[in-house]
Amino acid sequence: MSEYTIALDAMGGDQAPDAIVAGAIAALRCFEDIRVILTGPQSRLEALLAGAEDIRDRVEILPADDVIQMDESPMLAVRQKVNSSMVQAMLAVREGRAGAVVSAGNTGALLAGGMLRIGRIPGIERPALAPVIPGVKKPFLLIDAGANVDCQPRYLVQFGLMGSVYMRSVMDVERPAVGLVNIGAEAEKGNKLTKETYQLMQAQTSYYFAGNAEARDIPTGDFDVVVADGFDGNIILKYTEGLASAMMGMLKGNLNASKVTRLGAALSRPAFRKFKRSMDYNAYGGAPLLGVEGAVIKAHGASGETAIMNALRQARTMLAGDVAGKIREGLSGLTDA
Amino acid sequence: MSEYTIALDAMGGDQAPDAIVAGAIAALRCFEDIRVILTGPQSRLEALLAGAEDIRDRVEILPADDVIQMDESPMLAVRQKVNSSMVQAMLAVREGRAGAVVSAGNTGALLAGGMLRIGRIPGIERPALAPVIPGVKKPFLLIDAGANVDCQPRYLVQFGLMGSVYMRSVMDVERPAVGLVNIGAEAEKGNKLTKETYQLMQAQTSYYFAGNAEARDIPTGDFDVVVADGFDGNIILKYTEGLASAMMGMLKGNLNASKVTRLGAALSRPAFRKFKRSMDYNAYGGAPLLGVEGAVIKAHGASGETAIMNALRQARTMLAGDVAGKIREGLSGLTDA
Repeated sequence: MSEYTIALDAMGGDQAPDAIVAGAIAALRCFEDIRVILTGPQSRLEALLAGAEDIRDRVEILPADDVIQMDESPMLAVRQKVNSSMVQAMLAVREGRAGAVVSAGNTGALLAGGMLRIGRIPGIERPALAPVIPGVKKPFLLIDAGANVDCQPRYLVQFGLMGSVYMRSVMDVERPAVGLVNIGAEAEKGNKLTKETYQLMQAQTSYYFAGNAEARDIPTGDFDVVVADGFDGNIILKYTEGLASAMMGMLKGNLNASKVTRLGAALSRPAFRKFKRSMDYNAYGGAPLLGVEGAVIKAHGASGETAIMNALRQARTMLAGDVAGKIREGLSGLTDA
Repeated sequence: MSEYTIALDAMGGDQAPDAIVAGAIAALRCFEDIRVILTGPQSRLEALLAGAEDIRDRVEILPADDVIQMDESPMLAVRQKVNSSMVQAMLAVREGRAGAVVSAGNTGALLAGGMLRIGRIPGIERPALAPVIPGVKKPFLLIDAGANVDCQPRYLVQFGLMGSVYMRSVMDVERPAVGLVNIGAEAEKGNKLTKETYQLMQAQTSYYFAGNAEARDIPTGDFDVVVADGFDGNIILKYTEGLASAMMGMLKGNLNASKVTRLGAALSRPAFRKFKRSMDYNAYGGAPLLGVEGAVIKAHGASGETAIMNALRQARTMLAGDVAGKIREGLSGLTDA
């Protein structure tokens, strides 16, 4: 039986290490074909593994006594804190001891480390952060969600390929529709970047370019992959969070205004809970950093046991689907990029 | 008594000319200090004014037999259709017969016409579209919402001034907090445009620069003016529409799932209606095109009688507050821009 080894940054995230290790144990019990390398302080992790003898033979502890904090300068931290739990997990991938790395730690450090400590897939100019976000009809992948600003058109062309490969291999979308975030549907609409990118994307045969994605049509889920410069992608990602909670807050305020509407709200509660779950984009695991060797997954900083288990499942699916390998293959088919 | 003359494109918008003229009549009855110049086919407009003898002496019909359609190429239309209701309304401002123009027609044509047929305020490099959008705490002005892409830092510095003047003069905000849309709160965060703009804005004394506005914090209304390149601003505007309706759609689906939640939804209906109204950004009238002489207001294409009346009220307030004049004054105070 083929085995997938995943390096897990046991010290990354608000609930580290307890929830991280708990998530690892849960995943190991659920998937017999994975192995986990936990990076962090040996004795502390040993203690958290007590009572998990059933999966202990598939867990390895890679001692790392340093931790990259959430507010540290990413580039500096990745360069200097070689003995941090995050960098050690990355080096495990670089040295081939693990196929994937999962971390709920400092996002910037994970992005910098993906380039510096693991390395890009030859031909990929800019790895990109690509979370899967819930849409009305179906979820969509947003790439780049903030790893790169001031992008060149050919970077975006590569984002389209990477996103298409991921949705095909991990989310089982047969022929992902790739959209380019733009301010109009027509080819001639947009800024310098999107006009040039549109022309390049139209020439691609290694993935299905479905045209410009107007912001209005992004949440509906008409596109499986939504490509944007990291500046715009990050705004879309953060604005989604902000607007969703703002709208819920305004709605709650109106619902509390009268006895009748309060009663109505009480009766409606199950629907609101279901809605809240359906808006939660951690449901699809963490955000993969596409374009680096192996599989790198950024789990949400607040990740608990379940979120970590989902991220480990996602890493396993990425390895089983050989996402990095398929991106490498796809690159050879790209035109003018 | 000072009088404000507003040129109204009677043929612009989905409900033109009937709802447009009806809105004009309502506004004229509400505000005794305004005069309206209706542009469009004389006999047809005459007919719609029947029964409005009480305000007839403050309405003038400026004959214009051509119409710029919603799907026409803006620049071409504005150049060629000199006898269109929109261009005639603009020329009325240029020639000083009117102080403001209101149109629910082709947005691109109104933007192009603002530059070509009315003219920029000396010193303003790029007029910008600036709708006021509902926020949780208070409404905020978004500038630029789509008139200019690939902006230079100094354009954004001017957007900040124009937005600040508008919120002070029209929305009665004493000291508007101007935010720069960015992907991080810190000065060093962002792309080339926002990093340079941040430095320039910090040096300004003619308005209050409150720092970077992260997308997550825009809907809360912590900022009175939110400055962005027109590409990003248009994405924020369109995405707000798209996400709001998408979320309502998903929520409705969940509410209809069971008898109990359906009953709850029925009882909650007043709250939902109130919420829907509070999300409607036509409540604050149309979107002003700031940076051109006089006052130019783009009313929503679907504008009915009330929306047009609100847009006329807004034009009156802009003239009474001498927005264009205050922008001209403010320009002299700008540093490095």
